[in-house]
Amino acid sequence: MRIAKVVGVTVSTIKDEKLQGRKLLVVRETDETGELYGKPMVAVDTLDAGVGELVLVAQGSAARQTSMTDKSPVDTVIMAIIDSLEVDGRVTFRKA
Amino acid sequence: MRIAKVVGVTVSTIKDEKLQGRKLLVVRETDETGELYGKPMVAVDTLDAGVGELVLVAQGSAARQTSMTDKSPVDTVIMAIIDSLEVDGRVTFRKA
Amino acid sequence: MRIAKVVGVTVSTIKDEKLQGRKLLVVRETDETGELYGKPMVAVDTLDAGVGELVLVAQGSAARQTSMTDKSPVDTVIMAIIDSLEVDGRVTFRKA
Amino acid sequence: MRIAKVVGVTVSTIKDEKLQGRKLLVVRETDETGELYGKPMVAVDTLDAGVGELVLVAQGSAARQTSMTDKSPVDTVIMAIIDSLEVDGRVTFRKA
Amino acid sequence: MRIAKVVGVTVSTIKDEKLQGRKLLVVRETDETGELYGKPMVAVDTLDAGVGELVLVAQGSAARQTSMTDKSPVDTVIMAIIDSLEVDGRVTFRKA
Repeated sequence: MRIAKVVGVTVSTIKDEKLQGRKLLVVRETDETGELYGKPMVAVDTLDAGVGELVLVAQGSAARQTSMTDKSPVDTVIMAIIDSLEVDGRVTFRKA
Repeated sequence: MRIAKVVGVTVSTIKDEKLQGRKLLVVRETDETGELYGKPMVAVDTLDAGVGELVLVAQGSAARQTSMTDKSPVDTVIMAIIDSLEVDGRVTFRKA
Repeated sequence: MRIAKVVGVTVSTIKDEKLQGRKLLVVRETDETGELYGKPMVAVDTLDAGVGELVLVAQGSAARQTSMTDKSPVDTVIMAIIDSLEVDGRVTFRKA
Repeated sequence: MRIAKVVGVTVSTIKDEKLQGRKLLVVRETDETGELYGKPMVAVDTLDAGVGELVLVAQGSAARQTSMTDKSPVDTVIMAIIDSLEVDGRVTFRKA
Repeated sequence: MRIAKVVGVTVSTIKDEKLQGRKLLVVRETDETGELYGKPMVAVDTLDAGVGELVLVAQGSAARQTSMTDKSPVDTVIMAIIDSLEVDGRVTFRKA
């Protein structure tokens, strides 16, 4: 999984029928401190994550292994909200 | 999913039989403002998207999770047309 | 899918039994004008594509969604031969 | 598979129900000597790997092919702990 | 598929039970002449490939489509040993 930060939201009226009612969040990957890198991606939110939170995103067919995304045309899902990260024996991120 | 802009069309007579009648659009990934980056890709259009529109594309096996692409040899599908994007509390893109 | 050009062929005697009789072409990705970029890949040819032609390749599990590649250990397949590409209202490639 | 080093741990209270009780380790890819490169990823640990160990991670749908990850929304799993690596006839890494 | 060269071996005692007895080779991608690029990867060998040989590797779910890897947590498999490559009408690689 990739560490990512929720940075925004997507509004879309015309979309695949299986996506009706799904929350599509804009996320960007981060390193272990929450520092952003890379281009924005859009992930289905299954956990009511908020803008500013650090999350884990699963990509590929893994994104369909939740009750909200089963059989949907989606390739990225938020499947965990991060409380804290510890790297090299040091807490590098802690949720405010 | 990736944010992408529809930039063109592909014409192909000789193709896998399951692709007969499918619209194959040329898309390029964009950032949250619609700024293009990366090389062109080709996506199956399931939503009658038009050239110039910002869309979401799902890649990998997700691309086969629509009624138009089921069991087809395709790895990229347009599954949403974007109305607007809001990042960092600011509207970064709004459909004309 | 990616736009690619067929640039060569692979000869292999020792291979997975499901690949017996399959044509393994060397391809390289191109932009919308046919300009090559990136490293060579090898794709199963299901359409009798010729060296020099521009094609679409599907990657991942999509590569097994043809009658010639079903259940084979292959991750890249040629599933369309491109006649022409039109980007930004301009024909950027037309088959000779 | 990719060679990776376990560099830390992820704490997450709110996560997909199928991830309850799973250990989510922070890993970074390495070369054949254990030299780190790239950004951190998070992998499900199925082998009780420890921080500092070199492991193999499988990505994509392969990550669900263990009894601990079956049908879970995960895309990266630790499926081997590396004892040693030999490249070009030379031992490039040996577990302490 | 990617063209790769077998450059070494991985020794691992603690691994997923489905990998018992499997040969895990270190490979690096090459261009059409056998020139190495990129970082090392680890692939399951299903063809008794030797160090120094040029092979084709299939990645993703394709890696499980052999009798030796079925339902295993592996994402990279060697599914062909290359005899020769011809690119742009010229033999760029021939097995010694």
